[in-house]
Amino acid sequence: MQQFRTLNTRGAIEMCSYQLKQWFYVKRPNEFVGREHYELRESDFSPQLSKNEVLIKSEYISVDPYMRIQQAATHSWEPPHPLNTVQGAVVVAKVLESNNDNFQPGDWVTGYIGWQTHAVVHGNELQTLDPEQADIKTALGILGMPGRTAWFGLMEAGKPKPGETVLVSGAAGAVGSLVTQFAIKAGCRVVGIAGSEEKCEWLKTLGVDVYFDNVGGMITDAALTSLNLRARVVICGQISQYNGGLDTPEVGPRFLHQLLYKRVSVHGILARDFTHRMAEMIEHVAPWVKAGEIEFKSTEVCGFEYLPDTLAGLFEGQNIGKAIVRVV
Amino acid sequence: MQQFRTLNTRGAIEMCSYQLKQWFYVKRPNEFVGREHYELRESDFSPQLSKNEVLIKSEYISVDPYMRIQQAATHSWEPPHPLNTVQGAVVVAKVLESNNDNFQPGDWVTGYIGWQTHAVVHGNELQTLDPEQADIKTALGILGMPGRTAWFGLMEAGKPKPGETVLVSGAAGAVGSLVTQFAIKAGCRVVGIAGSEEKCEWLKTLGVDVYFDNVGGMITDAALTSLNLRARVVICGQISQYNGGLDTPEVGPRFLHQLLYKRVSVHGILARDFTHRMAEMIEHVAPWVKAGEIEFKSTEVCGFEYLPDTLAGLFEGQNIGKAIVRVV
Repeated sequence: MQQFRTLNTRGAIEMCSYQLKQWFYVKRPNEFVGREHYELRESDFSPQLSKNEVLIKSEYISVDPYMRIQQAATHSWEPPHPLNTVQGAVVVAKVLESNNDNFQPGDWVTGYIGWQTHAVVHGNELQTLDPEQADIKTALGILGMPGRTAWFGLMEAGKPKPGETVLVSGAAGAVGSLVTQFAIKAGCRVVGIAGSEEKCEWLKTLGVDVYFDNVGGMITDAALTSLNLRARVVICGQISQYNGGLDTPEVGPRFLHQLLYKRVSVHGILARDFTHRMAEMIEHVAPWVKAGEIEFKSTEVCGFEYLPDTLAGLFEGQNIGKAIVRVV
Repeated sequence: MQQFRTLNTRGAIEMCSYQLKQWFYVKRPNEFVGREHYELRESDFSPQLSKNEVLIKSEYISVDPYMRIQQAATHSWEPPHPLNTVQGAVVVAKVLESNNDNFQPGDWVTGYIGWQTHAVVHGNELQTLDPEQADIKTALGILGMPGRTAWFGLMEAGKPKPGETVLVSGAAGAVGSLVTQFAIKAGCRVVGIAGSEEKCEWLKTLGVDVYFDNVGGMITDAALTSLNLRARVVICGQISQYNGGLDTPEVGPRFLHQLLYKRVSVHGILARDFTHRMAEMIEHVAPWVKAGEIEFKSTEVCGFEYLPDTLAGLFEGQNIGKAIVRVV
């Protein structure tokens, strides 16, 4: 069964024909994910829209570390991503045809459309974007899932107070680069770690009040020994653990006794838990974006065919900020 | 410098003479603690009490797992226990002589007196116990530090709701045996684990809402894979990690990514953080104790000379409930 409707065969009226490209997820990776786990399928299609349906063309497609979690055979927050379906992903798209009063051709929209150039979806699955309000690509970053993760993870679970020290791992990534900026706005001293593990020894000399963790592994081992009394640890991502780590976890030093001595709290958070509170976040963050006070960093790859390579690149630290593939 | 005043040499009036026995902590253990890390010293002393001082005779002396944490050379919640001082411990004692209006000979008191048969202390360091209110030994257990740990750890950090499943490791121990009973009072389904690691596989089939952890290690590895969505983990103790584990931590499977998927919160708690709220706990728990609705389990060893052995026994699982040495 295919996750995304791309073709509507009901009805008899011939419509425009489009060249559809889709990346199917066909094989579970055991370690690193790459092109060999995907299959590019091309076809012509001539969609006929039912009532309330919209035909969209993807313009910007999201590539995120969480995709690798879903590829494990293990249930994480949801069942594993099914094989032989289009890879799931958030997309920024343009409306080509509409049979829904809320959407007109030319509108910018976003939704969980997947790695495909076109799709026919019910209007309820889309949200309209206002290009006057903010760059439409921010829907994949600061005003989308990564922004939600960074904002609510930091503010709700991290509870930063002015003058505190916030340590951010994966600080150059999509979420981390936003957390660092939000923490500065909150009046904190911010230390960002990106890339190598050389800084682990140095980290041990830091006194950390909030540790916002995107990476896990050795950097986190070092960070956990640097926590201040009543520190808060936000577990947002563990990218170092995703490549095969779900079924056969890595080993590392046991640290729970340190949480005891320092009375630390650790909170695992997922962006989806805060979806219903986006308006609250937008109220704070959108004015900063409009005023250019928060930088939305992204690494843009041009070409639908590079989607699997861009995903693989996330685990090699190739991106700065949000990884986005532009469909050209 | 000695931690506890046992001898007052000021003044000239000769007082009664007592046979004083003290266990000095003289050597840091690298692995398991035992008699070889202590020295028994005996002396006669004839205390003369200054204004507000009290001479007490220890009757029941506490032996607790946290003592081993303090014996590591590492700073935990406080500096390491100094060498060549009397081993610190809470004691239930009887007043022999008093130069303080709040205490009369024959009164029962409790305080952080250490492993010694007698001590001269300022009255401010003592709390009076009412034997009519509850068995005086409960001051070392359900109405003392272990009770405070169990009550506030479960209620404040664990936040149990009726019908939820509470898993308790170290369930036969001083704290664990109370947590299980408090959790039942809170309307929860309670699963207690005591002793062997055989149950680890079985644990994985459980759905746990609150995990109250006294032990750490392999049992905790298994428990963490059995957590329900939004579970709360209370880190109260990690007894499996104390024997040499502070400076050279054991390794175990990395699990932080699981906290993410399940949006788990982990809280390290120490009894001392709730000392100022004891009245609140007593209000709930003392009536249960008086009515015999909560069982205060203890393992009582007779003989001051067995203090180090009783401490060593904690790490071999020899005690059921609170370990107490009776001075005879």
